[in-house]
Amino acid sequence: MSKTFDALKPYLDRAMALKAAMALFEWDNETLAPKEAGRLTSKVIGILSGEYFGVVNQDKVKELAKACREDSGLTQAEKAQVRELSEELEKLGCIPREEYQEFARLASESARVWAKAKEKDDFDEFAPMLEKVIGFQKKFAGYRAKDGQKKYDVMLNDYEPGFSMEVLDEFFGAVKQEIVPLLTAVKSSGVMVRDDFLTGEFTDEQQERIGRFLAEYVGFDFSRGVMAVSAHPFTTNLHNKDVRITTHYNQNLDSSLFSVIHEAGHAVYELGIDDELTQTFVGEGASMGMHESQSRFFENIIGRNRNFWIPIYGKLQQAFPEALTDIGLDLFVRGVNKAEPGLIRTEADELTYSLHVLIRYELEKELIEGDLTVKELPGVWADKYEEYLGIRPETMKEGVLQDIHWSQGSFGYFPSYALGSAFGAQLYYHMKKEMDFDGLLAEGKVEVIREYLREHIHKHGKLKDSRRILKDVTGEDFNPQYYVRYLKEKYGELYRLKG
Amino acid sequence: MSKTFDALKPYLDRAMALKAAMALFEWDNETLAPKEAGRLTSKVIGILSGEYFGVVNQDKVKELAKACREDSGLTQAEKAQVRELSEELEKLGCIPREEYQEFARLASESARVWAKAKEKDDFDEFAPMLEKVIGFQKKFAGYRAKDGQKKYDVMLNDYEPGFSMEVLDEFFGAVKQEIVPLLTAVKSSGVMVRDDFLTGEFTDEQQERIGRFLAEYVGFDFSRGVMAVSAHPFTTNLHNKDVRITTHYNQNLDSSLFSVIHEAGHAVYELGIDDELTQTFVGEGASMGMHESQSRFFENIIGRNRNFWIPIYGKLQQAFPEALTDIGLDLFVRGVNKAEPGLIRTEADELTYSLHVLIRYELEKELIEGDLTVKELPGVWADKYEEYLGIRPETMKEGVLQDIHWSQGSFGYFPSYALGSAFGAQLYYHMKKEMDFDGLLAEGKVEVIREYLREHIHKHGKLKDSRRILKDVTGEDFNPQYYVRYLKEKYGELYRLKG
Repeated sequence: MSKTFDALKPYLDRAMALKAAMALFEWDNETLAPKEAGRLTSKVIGILSGEYFGVVNQDKVKELAKACREDSGLTQAEKAQVRELSEELEKLGCIPREEYQEFARLASESARVWAKAKEKDDFDEFAPMLEKVIGFQKKFAGYRAKDGQKKYDVMLNDYEPGFSMEVLDEFFGAVKQEIVPLLTAVKSSGVMVRDDFLTGEFTDEQQERIGRFLAEYVGFDFSRGVMAVSAHPFTTNLHNKDVRITTHYNQNLDSSLFSVIHEAGHAVYELGIDDELTQTFVGEGASMGMHESQSRFFENIIGRNRNFWIPIYGKLQQAFPEALTDIGLDLFVRGVNKAEPGLIRTEADELTYSLHVLIRYELEKELIEGDLTVKELPGVWADKYEEYLGIRPETMKEGVLQDIHWSQGSFGYFPSYALGSAFGAQLYYHMKKEMDFDGLLAEGKVEVIREYLREHIHKHGKLKDSRRILKDVTGEDFNPQYYVRYLKEKYGELYRLKG
Repeated sequence: MSKTFDALKPYLDRAMALKAAMALFEWDNETLAPKEAGRLTSKVIGILSGEYFGVVNQDKVKELAKACREDSGLTQAEKAQVRELSEELEKLGCIPREEYQEFARLASESARVWAKAKEKDDFDEFAPMLEKVIGFQKKFAGYRAKDGQKKYDVMLNDYEPGFSMEVLDEFFGAVKQEIVPLLTAVKSSGVMVRDDFLTGEFTDEQQERIGRFLAEYVGFDFSRGVMAVSAHPFTTNLHNKDVRITTHYNQNLDSSLFSVIHEAGHAVYELGIDDELTQTFVGEGASMGMHESQSRFFENIIGRNRNFWIPIYGKLQQAFPEALTDIGLDLFVRGVNKAEPGLIRTEADELTYSLHVLIRYELEKELIEGDLTVKELPGVWADKYEEYLGIRPETMKEGVLQDIHWSQGSFGYFPSYALGSAFGAQLYYHMKKEMDFDGLLAEGKVEVIREYLREHIHKHGKLKDSRRILKDVTGEDFNPQYYVRYLKEKYGELYRLKG
């Protein structure tokens, strides 16, 4: 333990506590807070973010961080914390506190305006807010850009260090080139997949009971976590002894079952962080993409695998007797893997999902780097859906207003969803060499797979970035071809396409 | 608006935001947080309290507060905020930040240890923690005591400005002199009051439905508040657009119905604070006693009044048909007003309630000013129950471990409960002169009574202290005789005692 670091630690702890408070407010806002609370609570959140800013971005901390960087006696975890802090300092150092705080307040308000606009299906109500948010984001990225760096690259780097437009253009190029034709082949295969049984009148209680069961089955520990209901499912963590997921109940069983497994995947990651790292600057998932790789790994690679359901399908049938009694395991698994172009990203199947993200990536690039205006957004959105997925949204709700992200200023976030799927596929092909993946699932031993992920990924938190993790686990740098291979194999078999 | 005050305002806002964050954590801890979260979350709370300390207790703030005190251009609300701040500064100025923060962490941990000890009915598990808490409290009071002021007086003043041991000895003297014989008379009156129908197998859903109805009926606004479940019912407020109550469900209808009305009374107070005062240092109830006067006013003076139930008793019967179908309004109202010595303060009737508080007052005085040790506490507790109420606790749960307060360091708090009842009685006799109190209740017009309270008490927040409020509303200083009169009249009638 370094004495230089010891002097820095109290500041890091204070920053951590303020972050935890903001996380709790965010959770509370989405799950419980009364509807009139918004404006006054936004003020609180704005001020707390200013406190965070003030604690981190002060001369004393900068000095101590510098001293730590020059001290050779730091442990690996301490070094990593100083690295994260230094990046944060560089980021915050460029942004005036008032603007930072004003933006935090705006983002919280904007999310509420978005929610109302979505409810009323009225883009115009949200547009002025979105313009402001984009204005802030571009300004902040401008402050932070180094050596002619593009603004959108600055944003991308926040969510996925090391992934610039150059890398992503290549990645999404492969997606476009391979997945669009694959979807066309699926659509024209003539193979019909039944999934009518996934729609019905399911009660909240039924869905909650099975949701809790599934979350626990894949490893969510209810003594260190809670599950609640929100409009949009999400995961929040305060530390590795308090990780929270939300779910939503609806008349689509696919959405209800797999969104729980998805969020449980995020949560298992955070619950798996080492005790020594939690409540520090490196005490959370390595990156958005790596996080999404885990949630999507649990949701799709584990959860939509036939073998996963072998030990528990009987239980599912019992939970939903009207819908599933006459549906055999194979029919069910085919149903939850059906590929079909849809308008809603969060309800998309694995095959079309990346196309939803591709569209957002292209739009973000245009909004930040190109000439696309907020006003034009709904039209261009619809055009792209028609081009890539062959369908056109009739409403704003099902179109440009469907996601909360932009309202909160999260530009550069969406690509990490698709990257997550790609990371997951790369990990999957490697793990299949290391263990009898399908056999373990069939025996109900999800914990062996989870422990592998914990040991190789989760427990390290942010000690390493996603590329380093992929390299260390699979022996190979990020390679999008595994993702393409995974989708081709899976959907080729399901829709009996020629190889 | 004063420019001097303008310069101070950002610091007050920051303090307010940190307080709101701590309030949210407290709410979350009691209602939702997973059981393993405790220790790490306590760390967060400890740090946030340190942040609060740091924001308020700094030279810049002291300077600005001084400048504001000397500035004649402040509005009344600004002056009141500066007064509250100055008191806070005086308080914090005596306590080293590390000790303050250490205590905040300890108090949060101690509340958890208490909860476990209570569950296991094991006082010894809690005793060492309680000793530490008392140690801190005495040390802090010692730091703060001025001119030979007694420590317990320092503590009392935190909850009820202007009420020292001298005033309280007189107040509790009257209670002891009048209520103990009144209870003896009630017990030997030979009058039997039926309340068997209040006990039964009531479902959580039944109780939740009627709880929500009652809360709303007395004025709790669900668009600005939420209701949840906790072991101990309580009220938290973030600001006047977000006030939260909890309830608990059990097999005793009296406890379930009236604890909701009680907490709704607290909440109505906070919801009634002026928009201009909320989120400021004077944006909450005037004092603990005044708060309790409102909650107990709603619970007892309104809620246990026969006229209150006239418009809604039919609804209650429908909600609990098995229990109440054959029970007429009069029988019900007599039942919920039955006086009977019990061991649990929170379940006590109006008559015996003050004796529970009297016992705690005497014990606190002995713990802080006298020689009573933590080890001796359970025995002395039991002796006093035997002396004043004629019954002796058999378990710690029903004895010294029943209340959370001491675990959190809240010494001097209990007296405000009894003072609240006394304030309420004084307000009641005055209001009866101003309006047809019973008639309004019988017509279902609780809102007229609530509006009167809002106009005369709630909206002013902490602009005035409790004595000032009583004086302004009733034209008279605090006078405990109204309380004695109220209990004598009410129970004299109910138990047909000679006048």
